[in-house]
Amino acid sequence: MNDRILGLRNKMAGLNLQGMIISNPTNVKYFTGLEAEGILLITRKENVYVTDSRYIEYVSNKITPFDEIVVDDFKNISKDDFENFFMFCENVGFEENYVTYASYKKFMHLYKINNFVEAESIINKLRMIKDEQEINNLKEACKITDDCFAFLRDYIKPGMTEKQIARAIEKYYMDNAEGVSFEPIVASGENSSKPHAIPTDRIIEENDIITIDMGCKINGYCSDMTRTIFLGTPTDEQKYVYDLVLKNQLKSLYEMRDGASIKDVAKIVKSNFALEGYDMAHGLGHGVGLDIHEPPFIRDSNDNCLKEKMVVTNEPGIYIPGNFGVRIEDTILITKDEQEVLTKSPKDLVVLSI
Amino acid sequence: MNDRILGLRNKMAGLNLQGMIISNPTNVKYFTGLEAEGILLITRKENVYVTDSRYIEYVSNKITPFDEIVVDDFKNISKDDFENFFMFCENVGFEENYVTYASYKKFMHLYKINNFVEAESIINKLRMIKDEQEINNLKEACKITDDCFAFLRDYIKPGMTEKQIARAIEKYYMDNAEGVSFEPIVASGENSSKPHAIPTDRIIEENDIITIDMGCKINGYCSDMTRTIFLGTPTDEQKYVYDLVLKNQLKSLYEMRDGASIKDVAKIVKSNFALEGYDMAHGLGHGVGLDIHEPPFIRDSNDNCLKEKMVVTNEPGIYIPGNFGVRIEDTILITKDEQEVLTKSPKDLVVLSI
Repeated sequence: MNDRILGLRNKMAGLNLQGMIISNPTNVKYFTGLEAEGILLITRKENVYVTDSRYIEYVSNKITPFDEIVVDDFKNISKDDFENFFMFCENVGFEENYVTYASYKKFMHLYKINNFVEAESIINKLRMIKDEQEINNLKEACKITDDCFAFLRDYIKPGMTEKQIARAIEKYYMDNAEGVSFEPIVASGENSSKPHAIPTDRIIEENDIITIDMGCKINGYCSDMTRTIFLGTPTDEQKYVYDLVLKNQLKSLYEMRDGASIKDVAKIVKSNFALEGYDMAHGLGHGVGLDIHEPPFIRDSNDNCLKEKMVVTNEPGIYIPGNFGVRIEDTILITKDEQEVLTKSPKDLVVLSI
Repeated sequence: MNDRILGLRNKMAGLNLQGMIISNPTNVKYFTGLEAEGILLITRKENVYVTDSRYIEYVSNKITPFDEIVVDDFKNISKDDFENFFMFCENVGFEENYVTYASYKKFMHLYKINNFVEAESIINKLRMIKDEQEINNLKEACKITDDCFAFLRDYIKPGMTEKQIARAIEKYYMDNAEGVSFEPIVASGENSSKPHAIPTDRIIEENDIITIDMGCKINGYCSDMTRTIFLGTPTDEQKYVYDLVLKNQLKSLYEMRDGASIKDVAKIVKSNFALEGYDMAHGLGHGVGLDIHEPPFIRDSNDNCLKEKMVVTNEPGIYIPGNFGVRIEDTILITKDEQEVLTKSPKDLVVLSI
């Protein structure tokens, strides 16, 4: 059986789960490598992937005997078969943050489940710790993101629109990776004060501040990086805020290591900003993997600790409504003793030549 | 108040719903025009959009007094405020196919709801019937899809890979629209026998059959079209299957009109294919709008009728595993007396010059 499903079965045993229904496509991909529409059933006896006729051929070619996954077509499964999957299971787990209310009711009815238990956290715990193959993919995605930033430093000129730059980023990632890991943010001038700005037709002018938040995918794994740059001379206020954000980004980076309390790390930046009269409008960071946003979420309500082989972002930001904003973000690998910054683009204040 | 929210309130009254929580971003966009993270609450007294500090500035600028939508920041809403939203509501509706089991429980707890009622169908019923603005967007998206197909007829040459063609489609839509409405399918040779093939590194050869399924977005509205083409001479079997699919696509097109039973239309193609020994591996079509797949679903289990101003696809296909497949798909507007085909690319057997 593959290591990931074995790991899941171990965690299930610890929670007294005899069965599990995995329907989130990203989780299915994590455990099987499959990218199709279907559901993975972990039963007492076997692992079953249920799909439909559109995918049977692809799935049958992709699954190896080593996976120990039985492939079934929905339409060949009788009412009795469905009820038999979890017949002698007292507790069956499901993904409570993925399964809709309608699906929950359907599953209960179809599989005649005794106790249907919220169990997404055991999958999250597995996915939070990256294996070597995953780390290599994440490193590669970050490397290409650095390359894209280097490309942008030459590419961006006054007269371009935010949308134009966003499209150049998309094209870059399409040519050099599997495309973007999320819609790029290119926010210039006063638009930079919106943390999640959508690129507009605003024309980039001399002396503009520009926040660029972008990432790509390699084998499904995401990168995430933000840089705030200047197309000419920053104002004194902009310089001051930039330095404050950068100082805190380096401070929180230093704190992010195996065993560190997530809550404590998030609080440091928040209180440092508050001391200067600024508010932290979003969390300090988030896990990155097959999803662009995944556990652990680096915020002051998270009681867990960082662990070796987690990959997370570190992205403090200050936003002054109607004026400007600064965010600096890296994707980081937590290592045994400290941390490795996977996005290596320069963070000292970048002023582009016009 | 805007017409769409007014329409919703009318439907709510008919179902004895005094309140509604709308959290699916596509539905929120439909009712408000907003593209942010937030929830729309339809209460007895008002329409409230609850978001967080990242989006407050954008949302406040976008909402007009005419919309009659109050904007609120999550963090300024107290526990009591949440409980007051639906205080005197007997029944509150929610989107059962969007809201996860975890969110369902959270909503129940946070808003102290008496009866939380599955009510997604009333939103679907509104969204199924397109207004003039929506139809114009859909027409524009289909027009650009036709242009892309014309471009591909010259572009595709032996020696290219499926992925290369898929990327050319993505670039075309990025330059001429808001990007793709779904990942394009480019399936050549034996790959064409998979209805939902993912583009591979397979090199296109002379005499290949190629299925291309693609669409783009205009103002969020999707187009969807499939053509199966030949890069040289089709075999007699391929010609036979192509003609069979096309004949049935024209037949079902003719049947698709205001008042037609969806079930009956879907059954015609299915039984025609069965007579020839072929199986219909998927539904005959689906609604198209802000989502690429949305109600109504054109399948033989749907008891409803087609109505004027619905926009749906018509996409019969035959797939011979390990050999080849043929699918022909158009996006169609149902009109008062008949139907208008919005994707106008030629459907007679296209043989590209090599």
